[in-house]
Amino acid sequence: MNQTIFIREAAPADYNRVLELIQELATFEKEPDAVEVTVDELIASASGSSPLFTCFVGEVNDRIEGIALCYFRFSTWKGKTVHLEDLIVTEHMRGIGLGKKLYDRVLQHAHKNQVRRVEWVVLDWNTNAIEFYEKTGATMIKDWYLAQMNETALQEYINRL
Amino acid sequence: MNQTIFIREAAPADYNRVLELIQELATFEKEPDAVEVTVDELIASASGSSPLFTCFVGEVNDRIEGIALCYFRFSTWKGKTVHLEDLIVTEHMRGIGLGKKLYDRVLQHAHKNQVRRVEWVVLDWNTNAIEFYEKTGATMIKDWYLAQMNETALQEYINRL
Repeated sequence: MNQTIFIREAAPADYNRVLELIQELATFEKEPDAVEVTVDELIASASGSSPLFTCFVGEVNDRIEGIALCYFRFSTWKGKTVHLEDLIVTEHMRGIGLGKKLYDRVLQHAHKNQVRRVEWVVLDWNTNAIEFYEKTGATMIKDWYLAQMNETALQEYINRL
Repeated sequence: MNQTIFIREAAPADYNRVLELIQELATFEKEPDAVEVTVDELIASASGSSPLFTCFVGEVNDRIEGIALCYFRFSTWKGKTVHLEDLIVTEHMRGIGLGKKLYDRVLQHAHKNQVRRVEWVVLDWNTNAIEFYEKTGATMIKDWYLAQMNETALQEYINRL
């Protein structure tokens, strides 16, 4: 059976479903409690004069089954870049090309905005994804660590200043 | 001799000097031609209704000797975060505490904006920096690769679509 895939920018009414996909992935990754973001935050952050991200949704037969969330970053060497934060496809819709269509849409968005780089991160054991990315022309950079300070550590650090 | 360190947000007139520091670091890292960003791009990207970054400058005796450039990102789990893109101190001004003051300012900025995470990247061999970051409460995440698609690869990919 042919499935109709349609990619578009998310509208405010979509963020309930967008959060469902985010939560589904977190649960699958055995971090069900890691998601602190709310639908209201998503809607507020996607709109206004300084939106924090652009979210594309992928519909299959009129139901959102995938999302790609990206935003601009700024490299001191390359200037404006696009960062792909997350690309999620629901488990039962894998293999029909939805992920590729979302990926393409993000790259078209980057191209349209004339950035000098698109970037994202990938888990080092995810060889399928890495192979796919490399085939599309991306390079894996393996000698950096991600450093993160969470809310509690930040508060404690500020208290000590 | 006591040096007076003063941290403030960059003004448009500072970006000539800011680019000098960016270029100095690139040259030191043996990538002198990697810097494609221009002063005009820096000024335009720092201003307007949707600035792409916030740049703090550190002055020592009224001369800019360090910069910290950061911006907001958006985590699908944590919401708004602050990303520290680059923290540069000129070679001859290392060791007087300028880097720490710039780091503190970025964390204060993050705290003021109530983000749930501050993040950056660090080269895996830079043990001094890693030790410092960990002492301040940050965690190093070691199982991700950075994926990057550059301008040429992006153009080629788009052409093939």
